[in-house]
Amino acid sequence: MKNEIPYKIYLSESELPNAWYNVRADMKNKPAPLLNPGTGKPVTFDDLAHVFCDELVKQELDNDTAFIEIPEEIRNFYKMYRPSPLVRAYCLEEKLQTPAKIYYKFEGNNTSGSHKLNSAIAQAYYAKKQGLKGVTTETGAGQWGTALSMACAYFGLDCKVFMVKVSYEQKPFRREVMRTYGASVTPSPSDSTEVGRKMLAEFPGTGGSLGCAISEAVEAAVTHEGYRYVLGSVLNQVLLHQSVIGLESKAAMDKYGIKPDIIIGCAGGGSNLGGLISPFMGEKLRGEADYRIIAVEPASCPSFTRGRFAYDFCDTGKVCPLAKMYTLGSGFMPSPIHAGGLRYHGMSGILSQLYDDGYMEARSVTQTDVFEAAEQFARCEGILPAPESSHAIRAAIDEALKCRETGEEKTIFFGLTGTGYFDMKAYEQYNNGTMTDYIPTDADLEKGFAGLPKIG
Amino acid sequence: MKNEIPYKIYLSESELPNAWYNVRADMKNKPAPLLNPGTGKPVTFDDLAHVFCDELVKQELDNDTAFIEIPEEIRNFYKMYRPSPLVRAYCLEEKLQTPAKIYYKFEGNNTSGSHKLNSAIAQAYYAKKQGLKGVTTETGAGQWGTALSMACAYFGLDCKVFMVKVSYEQKPFRREVMRTYGASVTPSPSDSTEVGRKMLAEFPGTGGSLGCAISEAVEAAVTHEGYRYVLGSVLNQVLLHQSVIGLESKAAMDKYGIKPDIIIGCAGGGSNLGGLISPFMGEKLRGEADYRIIAVEPASCPSFTRGRFAYDFCDTGKVCPLAKMYTLGSGFMPSPIHAGGLRYHGMSGILSQLYDDGYMEARSVTQTDVFEAAEQFARCEGILPAPESSHAIRAAIDEALKCRETGEEKTIFFGLTGTGYFDMKAYEQYNNGTMTDYIPTDADLEKGFAGLPKIG
Repeated sequence: MKNEIPYKIYLSESELPNAWYNVRADMKNKPAPLLNPGTGKPVTFDDLAHVFCDELVKQELDNDTAFIEIPEEIRNFYKMYRPSPLVRAYCLEEKLQTPAKIYYKFEGNNTSGSHKLNSAIAQAYYAKKQGLKGVTTETGAGQWGTALSMACAYFGLDCKVFMVKVSYEQKPFRREVMRTYGASVTPSPSDSTEVGRKMLAEFPGTGGSLGCAISEAVEAAVTHEGYRYVLGSVLNQVLLHQSVIGLESKAAMDKYGIKPDIIIGCAGGGSNLGGLISPFMGEKLRGEADYRIIAVEPASCPSFTRGRFAYDFCDTGKVCPLAKMYTLGSGFMPSPIHAGGLRYHGMSGILSQLYDDGYMEARSVTQTDVFEAAEQFARCEGILPAPESSHAIRAAIDEALKCRETGEEKTIFFGLTGTGYFDMKAYEQYNNGTMTDYIPTDADLEKGFAGLPKIG
Repeated sequence: MKNEIPYKIYLSESELPNAWYNVRADMKNKPAPLLNPGTGKPVTFDDLAHVFCDELVKQELDNDTAFIEIPEEIRNFYKMYRPSPLVRAYCLEEKLQTPAKIYYKFEGNNTSGSHKLNSAIAQAYYAKKQGLKGVTTETGAGQWGTALSMACAYFGLDCKVFMVKVSYEQKPFRREVMRTYGASVTPSPSDSTEVGRKMLAEFPGTGGSLGCAISEAVEAAVTHEGYRYVLGSVLNQVLLHQSVIGLESKAAMDKYGIKPDIIIGCAGGGSNLGGLISPFMGEKLRGEADYRIIAVEPASCPSFTRGRFAYDFCDTGKVCPLAKMYTLGSGFMPSPIHAGGLRYHGMSGILSQLYDDGYMEARSVTQTDVFEAAEQFARCEGILPAPESSHAIRAAIDEALKCRETGEEKTIFFGLTGTGYFDMKAYEQYNNGTMTDYIPTDADLEKGFAGLPKIG
């Protein structure tokens, strides 16, 4: 256990990045533009500005500026929970008897329990700066809604969260965290929006869906004076804000001369993976360094490994712009696995382009294999991981076990996005041996692909 | 917001204390000895050694050694979540518009969610070193059981937790965290012990009590070969291990030239308060410095502020040694408030003696006032605090508001023992406006005092 590298590398607050890194600036093939769903043409600033805050629209459309300054107010908030630790997994290495060196960046040490807060505070800040009254959003698993509630409480903004009804009922604790932070939480579908009322009339008793909640949140934003809609993943702006994860990781590694051979992140919409890998990907794009980069997704929702690279709707209500991405089709209904944060039919446009250009690889893992890794990790590293994060743990353990076979002393680095405190129902299933796996058949996927719009 | 003192002061791992501090060494009036409940005489090493591990019995009885080395294995485990941050509450200060400087030591950044892990890992280590198979314990709110489960998983020890039945049913998530760490969790009263069977026969359908769970855990320890009983609070050994909180706080403060005027901790059995204040109390006892030290307890369970300083039973089953302490009587049934960790009829013997000797003051606060402070804190400091910890927050805010009145720039320091992720039922009540307060009448207290044994 003796090593000059500490268990946890903490940067000082003065070493917190001053600017986010925009990986698009270094991409030769830029992500394809969002398309206006009405005209089929690339969206303009004005198209987006009635839904999103002005400054965020600028960030969304900016493919060229490599570094965008982090405003001081956001840096001050970051200081309440950042820099987050880069942890050397000494205990896990010992348990696995691997010559590999394993590191993880832990983003769960804040009340929202995940990395989502990094973008939530940025989006809330720009909304406040624009003089808005509040923001609207949707939440499924609840991490994003919690993070946004915290950010809005800090800036004194109103926060309206549409929470998928089945989650609202099954995850009352997440709901109460949001309420403690002063957010109003509405089960979706609700009778407060036109799209919600239509859904309720058509499917009385429905438990709702993320797609419907998005549509309600967007409607609430555009029909309330002084409100805009905000989103916690997929968008370019979100990956930009999340680059703080990768920048801190890189700075901490450089300080101790650590160079990862393999970088692993779980992938749902791409907010964590995109942020985690960004500065490393930048080096790779500029030909300055090489890394193996692995995206890990659930076998039940395999957008990278079994999806198509095509224009698709971002929401099932089809009110949002179209994005070119790896997708299973907006009509694909992911099975009810416990990693709710990874149950999205599509994937960030930036990551989709990078994957298509061969800069990263992807693999899918099953739910029970993921929880086996989660339990193993919890018992030696002390942290009870979120199901989402545990996808990355699974892959990291698998790579470390390969090193045990080959004797290679590889350096493996993964993102631990959050804690599983609000996922104990899932752990209970795993502990009781009643957890099952879901892998869609090719026929299931074809149904999703059939709904893809005929564009591009 | 500009200040040379960072938001969070992190010591490096090399600055982790090498030894625990035993405040008894500096006390002129030592805590009164534990008494054997059979003979009424001070307990001997042998009396205790069939219940507790040998090394822990030595620590329990040692009133003289000021510093006891922390074994390297424990230090290595500490490094997974320690040193914990000393946080400057800049945002809270601003919201309160107070000239006071507020600091808190945050112990919630580990999966058990509280400071309990500091002693759990020490007790598990000594059990392992003695070659035991496992340990038994009870848990009410669940923090201690969770911490012990994590510690036992790390050392490969078996862990049997008797969980108060009503908590077992109402806090399934805590239970599942323990099971994820490999502990067996039994609802108490159970039919696995004599005392449990007796209780079930006498009160079928009872929800159990902490007192009964303690008795079951002790019985399970003494009737199983290779097992000992461990406890998370009250005992001298626990306060010794928890001194790591105060030692780190003092080291971090010394580094930045911070000297607290007021030190505040919540008080149930005393594990947090005793650890937090220990090095400061040491200076006070040696006449090297002066501090105002405030214990904060729930108005519903006011052992310091309305209790008696007398010998009493530590458990309702009356199988444990008698301790001289501030107590409400072992028959006193605290109302079902949400700060389960503070619902204990007695108080650490060390703290009781110090309080009786005038080295600290105490106050009690009501539940709704506590949650008001918790919400205020959460909204600006980002951390959702445990109900127990929020007792200290309440007092810290009250002192800071006094400073706003007087203009005094006092330095206020309090212990934030943990997070409230598993207490969302309580927050829900508070959010819904249905939380009530409980203050025992004098007649209620008299009933508890009537059961005090006629000793000392």
